[in-house]
Amino acid sequence: MGDEIWFTEQQTEDLRLGVRVSGVLHRARSAFQDVVVVDTPSHGHLLALDGFVQTTDLDEHCYHEMLAHVAASSHDMPRRALVIGGGDGGLVRELLRHGLAVDLCEIDEAVVTASRRYFPALAGSLDDPRVTVHIADGIAFVAQQRQAFDLIYIDSSEPVGPGEGLFVPAFYRTAAAALRPGGMVVAQSESPFYNLDVLRRVRAGMAAGFPDVRTYLGPVPTYPSGTWSYTVASLGPDPSAPVRPAPAGLRFYTPDVHRAAFALPAFLREALA
Amino acid sequence: MGDEIWFTEQQTEDLRLGVRVSGVLHRARSAFQDVVVVDTPSHGHLLALDGFVQTTDLDEHCYHEMLAHVAASSHDMPRRALVIGGGDGGLVRELLRHGLAVDLCEIDEAVVTASRRYFPALAGSLDDPRVTVHIADGIAFVAQQRQAFDLIYIDSSEPVGPGEGLFVPAFYRTAAAALRPGGMVVAQSESPFYNLDVLRRVRAGMAAGFPDVRTYLGPVPTYPSGTWSYTVASLGPDPSAPVRPAPAGLRFYTPDVHRAAFALPAFLREALA
Repeated sequence: MGDEIWFTEQQTEDLRLGVRVSGVLHRARSAFQDVVVVDTPSHGHLLALDGFVQTTDLDEHCYHEMLAHVAASSHDMPRRALVIGGGDGGLVRELLRHGLAVDLCEIDEAVVTASRRYFPALAGSLDDPRVTVHIADGIAFVAQQRQAFDLIYIDSSEPVGPGEGLFVPAFYRTAAAALRPGGMVVAQSESPFYNLDVLRRVRAGMAAGFPDVRTYLGPVPTYPSGTWSYTVASLGPDPSAPVRPAPAGLRFYTPDVHRAAFALPAFLREALA
Repeated sequence: MGDEIWFTEQQTEDLRLGVRVSGVLHRARSAFQDVVVVDTPSHGHLLALDGFVQTTDLDEHCYHEMLAHVAASSHDMPRRALVIGGGDGGLVRELLRHGLAVDLCEIDEAVVTASRRYFPALAGSLDDPRVTVHIADGIAFVAQQRQAFDLIYIDSSEPVGPGEGLFVPAFYRTAAAALRPGGMVVAQSESPFYNLDVLRRVRAGMAAGFPDVRTYLGPVPTYPSGTWSYTVASLGPDPSAPVRPAPAGLRFYTPDVHRAAFALPAFLREALA
């Protein structure tokens, strides 16, 4: 019956999250990482890369909506966005709600293939005519662009392996050059409780290319600590102030949630000062 | 070496959190529940009751500060508070920062005893001359009070076992009678992601005795989903608006965090409407 089959993520050396599994749907080694999809009674389908939960049906909207809509709603008229990573399509789906053209640059085709099959509510977005999918290295892709995008999103896995170069100053200098005036780059920047080192590294990287770097928070139940940080670097707009109404149909994001997400706990405000 | 000893909480039927254990400090069966204290490399001391994490050195301030200071900072001049449950002393410690007299009514002396020994930074508050500790049933205690408190806090364990009667309308009617005019009662109301039924039950219970019931959220990494809900019922003040500055020395709460905590995600606003 699979009742006592568990997917267990070793979140840190000293912490584990276990999710009961009703079936193993997909398990493969791609050129870059282990790609696993399991079905669960509590969280629906769950995608893990190298053992780290990326997406579950239950809470993917918490992550994708907060990643997408804060910057997108703070820009007065975005037209074109680039997503680096994000092969599950969830972030692209959210960006399409703003009527944007979206380029997705995912290094691992295996993630896109598995997501098309097991996460159709996310990866269906990749078939939209406004979307161009590039199976390519995001760092090289960004380096070739000049003032091409209003918004760039780093929807990567952990900063080890292929994602590592997305967390350094050199990358953010090329990202700044790839943005149009008034553009913004947003990166997932890990747990403010367990990965403060990563968060600091992202902020330092961004500061090399941008005058304004700000961190905001939101819940994601299946990510370590249940609270996730996002960091946005802006060439102009104030990312904490929505200037356009929320798209219809959202389950998490509201303009009030947007503003509230920038109210950092005392310990974090101090740690990032 | 204890390297592969883990404390595992069965958070829901389908979800587990594991924390690596460096030592088992205390393990006993009280008249009411299993009381366990372990030492961990990542979270310091950890207190569990009937297998559920109540307090860890790492994140207890996230919970206790958000439970204490939202209502306390929204009241223009609180003088006396009652805590039901909360035998670890963490909430009392926070309330003392407001200069209040505090009555603690904890049903299980074993929790107080273990906390005095293994959580001195929390339970040390119970030795303050402004604090009176009652080892008694909170429901019966509240029923004997008339306009005695400005603030009542329900810092209970899960709504099964001894805590069950703290979640029903009859209790909140007696709580309203135990409050002075302009008083507030605050309850921890579980995870907005995994325990929406409990949250709804707390709100329905409070609505029987109070004209104004509001829910706010905050992160607690070791609680299920990592995001916790708190529900406050008011006889007067707007609990979302701090009217006094934050006490000194806090690690989590700020007045901005206070206001932001009431910005509920779209799904929750809808679920509670």
